[in-house]
Amino acid sequence: MMLKNDRFLRALQCQPVDKTPVWMMRQAGRYLPEYRETRKRGKNFMTLCQTPELACEVTLQPLARYPLDAAILFSDILTIPDAMGLGLSFTEGEGPRFERPVRNLADIKNLAVPDPNDSLRYVMDAVSLIRQELAGKVPLIGFSGSPWTLATYMVEGGTTKTFSRVKGLMFDQPQAMHTLLDTLAKAVIIYLNAQIAAGAQAVMVFDTWGGILTTRDYLDFSLSYMRRIVEGVKGAPVILFTKDGNEWLEEIASTGCNAVGLDWKLPIGSARARIGDKVALQGNMDPCVLYASPECIRQEVATILKSFGNGEGHIFNLGHGIHPQVNPEHVAVFIDAVHELSGDYHKGK
Amino acid sequence: MMLKNDRFLRALQCQPVDKTPVWMMRQAGRYLPEYRETRKRGKNFMTLCQTPELACEVTLQPLARYPLDAAILFSDILTIPDAMGLGLSFTEGEGPRFERPVRNLADIKNLAVPDPNDSLRYVMDAVSLIRQELAGKVPLIGFSGSPWTLATYMVEGGTTKTFSRVKGLMFDQPQAMHTLLDTLAKAVIIYLNAQIAAGAQAVMVFDTWGGILTTRDYLDFSLSYMRRIVEGVKGAPVILFTKDGNEWLEEIASTGCNAVGLDWKLPIGSARARIGDKVALQGNMDPCVLYASPECIRQEVATILKSFGNGEGHIFNLGHGIHPQVNPEHVAVFIDAVHELSGDYHKGK
Repeated sequence: MMLKNDRFLRALQCQPVDKTPVWMMRQAGRYLPEYRETRKRGKNFMTLCQTPELACEVTLQPLARYPLDAAILFSDILTIPDAMGLGLSFTEGEGPRFERPVRNLADIKNLAVPDPNDSLRYVMDAVSLIRQELAGKVPLIGFSGSPWTLATYMVEGGTTKTFSRVKGLMFDQPQAMHTLLDTLAKAVIIYLNAQIAAGAQAVMVFDTWGGILTTRDYLDFSLSYMRRIVEGVKGAPVILFTKDGNEWLEEIASTGCNAVGLDWKLPIGSARARIGDKVALQGNMDPCVLYASPECIRQEVATILKSFGNGEGHIFNLGHGIHPQVNPEHVAVFIDAVHELSGDYHKGK
Repeated sequence: MMLKNDRFLRALQCQPVDKTPVWMMRQAGRYLPEYRETRKRGKNFMTLCQTPELACEVTLQPLARYPLDAAILFSDILTIPDAMGLGLSFTEGEGPRFERPVRNLADIKNLAVPDPNDSLRYVMDAVSLIRQELAGKVPLIGFSGSPWTLATYMVEGGTTKTFSRVKGLMFDQPQAMHTLLDTLAKAVIIYLNAQIAAGAQAVMVFDTWGGILTTRDYLDFSLSYMRRIVEGVKGAPVILFTKDGNEWLEEIASTGCNAVGLDWKLPIGSARARIGDKVALQGNMDPCVLYASPECIRQEVATILKSFGNGEGHIFNLGHGIHPQVNPEHVAVFIDAVHELSGDYHKGK
């Protein structure tokens, strides 16, 4: 099936585009009334993820409303540890919880790399179905959590403010932590390659918690495993995103990934000056701008486009997932502003 | 009264010391059994803050256990908005809450700068009492939240993950936000000068939430008001600490402050290379290292001392407040390691 809109994939390769492509992290989500309706049918969040028809339905919802340039699989970053037998559940307002967290070397040695076509079959079925239903409208992005980020949830057993358990294990038993991360890196590579085989046209690795580490520990316990993923994933471009990772942009870019995701803290022009000759950049509007007036939103889009400047390799996005309380009409203003205001920066095509 | 241990004040001025001084953010706190005992007598956290005898008692507790080089006033960063009439309360495990949050320009215009010797008298009484009880053992640090950080709590009404209200106000009505921050900067200057008059020998400004802003907004809405505080505070050195503010170290250092607080993400040697000729540096061990073994703790102290290197202007600290679950014996290992291992770096004296 021919791809009708290839802006996103072209920008990922720093090739010329007519307008800057745009999509939003968590674009299928609670800010959309139609999503909340579907949620009522799927009993809980995991049922939505595990039922390919429902996952497909919510993946496509934002594309029916907005002229987005990419779709992203509706799923969770914690599917791999769940498939490893840790027993994932979500409590409303409390975030994820594992029934059987990983606490020591014996627990770690018991973990096996899940077969993506067995215990993660539901993800591959969702990818295939979404790809088919998209019918070439826009490309489909697959994703995974980073090994370090998966490890934090697996060791802590859920969300945490202090990361005391996972950091305690890391500081006290670094070799045990490396064993865990090695298993997870293998699992992520197999998982992402299976998503690509099922139809994903790009993949993104979310390193939600790499940013809580010191530079030394980030390079050792998070980035080195993402580098292995970049090397091991075949057949689709890879985007790496470390939340609060602006200190390490050069190192992230040097993994060989195609694009680096940015949060909103650094002006994208500064990031481009540092690494933009090597990779594409994805970002970087503060999601809170969507609470402001349409005029403010357009102004901020203009500021970010100007900061990136002329030329290729920019995928517009929020610097973090869209918030559940955002007005869907403001999202329309945002997406339209990116397309309308970006043409002048792409005179090459 | 002669100060018996002036390492901390000397390091703040980048003057020679025999050993690197050390103190810990939240050193008077829940990890200490004696603190938990005192908490049982004071009905809640605010009662502890507002009763000078109890505030003094807990301030001195860690100094009785450990050879710390400074005491820090036991108080809360939200005393100013409470004195402005917002009605502060704390629910166990839920953090601070304001009964009457600030939501619009009318609310903002109603705010008056509190008289530190009236509604904040209890703070000044605690400072005087602690200073007297310290009897010159070590210097006493006073503190305040930064205007931006106070504003986030005042507008949100409590803790938040998304900062949607305060950022919505900032993006939509920047002038209203500047009016609020202007009032808060005036209040903080008066408050810190009153603490100094009452006996504080250094003051620290905690910018807990500056790090959630874009560079542009951080400079405009947070740092510019901290610069005014640095200019307005007289008679004691000023430490500025923006959590997650490593991107802006040069700008923070250029305010004229005496020291910059560092979180743990950046190696202190890198921070010193960037700004260490202008100011002292305070930090920067990951508080989670205290969960690790004594050997790990000593190793990490050695690594940070080596990263800073020879010479003056280092105040050892954690990169964030000590966690409530830490073993007090590990703290002893930490403090002793700093003193024991740092002598070689101060051969000038």
